[in-house]
Amino acid sequence: MSTAALLVIGNEILSGKVRDTNSAFLAVELRKLGVDLERILTIPDDIELIAREAKDMSDRYDFVFTSGGIGPTHDDMTMDGIAKAFGRELEMNQSMIDRMARYADKPLNDAMKKMAIIPTGAEILDVGGLWFPVVMVENVHIFPGIPELFEKKFHSIADRFSGVPFQLKKIYVKPAESDIAEILNALLLEFPELMLGSYPRINEEHYRVMLTLESRDASYLEKATETLVGNLPADSVHKIE
Amino acid sequence: MSTAALLVIGNEILSGKVRDTNSAFLAVELRKLGVDLERILTIPDDIELIAREAKDMSDRYDFVFTSGGIGPTHDDMTMDGIAKAFGRELEMNQSMIDRMARYADKPLNDAMKKMAIIPTGAEILDVGGLWFPVVMVENVHIFPGIPELFEKKFHSIADRFSGVPFQLKKIYVKPAESDIAEILNALLLEFPELMLGSYPRINEEHYRVMLTLESRDASYLEKATETLVGNLPADSVHKIE
Repeated sequence: MSTAALLVIGNEILSGKVRDTNSAFLAVELRKLGVDLERILTIPDDIELIAREAKDMSDRYDFVFTSGGIGPTHDDMTMDGIAKAFGRELEMNQSMIDRMARYADKPLNDAMKKMAIIPTGAEILDVGGLWFPVVMVENVHIFPGIPELFEKKFHSIADRFSGVPFQLKKIYVKPAESDIAEILNALLLEFPELMLGSYPRINEEHYRVMLTLESRDASYLEKATETLVGNLPADSVHKIE
Repeated sequence: MSTAALLVIGNEILSGKVRDTNSAFLAVELRKLGVDLERILTIPDDIELIAREAKDMSDRYDFVFTSGGIGPTHDDMTMDGIAKAFGRELEMNQSMIDRMARYADKPLNDAMKKMAIIPTGAEILDVGGLWFPVVMVENVHIFPGIPELFEKKFHSIADRFSGVPFQLKKIYVKPAESDIAEILNALLLEFPELMLGSYPRINEEHYRVMLTLESRDASYLEKATETLVGNLPADSVHKIE
């Protein structure tokens, strides 16, 4: 079983100027791959903080992703933070420069070259035709904050990350959560390995709760689903997906 | 100056089943109030983890908010976690029961009563006519994960949180970020107290970067904005907001 964590770096998220969509994207994609995302942390542009949190995540999870802070401006501190996390120096990487020059649509200026200053010993992951690759230091994968690029780059290297995917059933039910809570608790006693979620919804016409049942074992999931549906009051189920 | 942190509790977010919108909402609202949101952390439904992270946030920030995990089901562990964070017991709070009974649209069942089991010494904040109030322990404000309720409850107690609001200018510019990076760096040397953000945009027709300039001092912001616009190449600015 593989685990993962995401470090979102950016004052713009914390101050509400830009909405983070990379977290939700990564959560969905890792789930499909069967990798357990266990922590999402958003912090300001601060080298010390990036270093401390990235190192902590690197020690505790199999795969670490960072989002943001790798552009050419003053507030882009992710490379500095990651270098510090692992006690590395920063250096202008000539193979990055060569690669960027090959893919860029204009000559590299100083600001673009600054983006080739990366931690020593970093691995450069190919991401197809994009001018800027994914830089990896230890198990930390450094991604841009721009959603279109984050998504494109993740897809291009997604086959590096794999686990055993979960099977999921969603059951939309009509009773209030408080009226079925005891049935859910009883289900978990009978199926202790089941991952069971219960999410009340407001403003939905046909159901009041979305229940999610998950297991990496399809037949276990099937049995739990049947048991739950059998235990719910008659006519409780709006639909099952 | 007041600081804040948000602890989002929920496997459903990490597994991509539910998209967290409370973080973005809170970031915008706190910014309007002038409170600095410095950390957003999403973790699984796990009592130990909730306790550790909530205590850490409580020690380091003025206001702490939690989102999620306060319903009547097995996966609702926030009250347990917060009690453990501060070394408190859990008890069924009679004034909560009375209050809930007054506002609920039906008699309280056992599952609903479970929601009145809160840490000893907790403060109960009035949130208008909603049947379930905001529970506060030390500086930790416990909110539901359901966005409609999170937002309604936050608005109802927002006047508890105040700071000195930032003044913001957004400048949308046509050149690429790498072509103006040096101008931005020079601006910060001249206006070291300025909060300057630079956010490249893809797929926008009229500009390539959104610049944000912020200060709590309106005249400082005005001067910095004038200086930047004067230093940018002619015809760079698409619009200023």
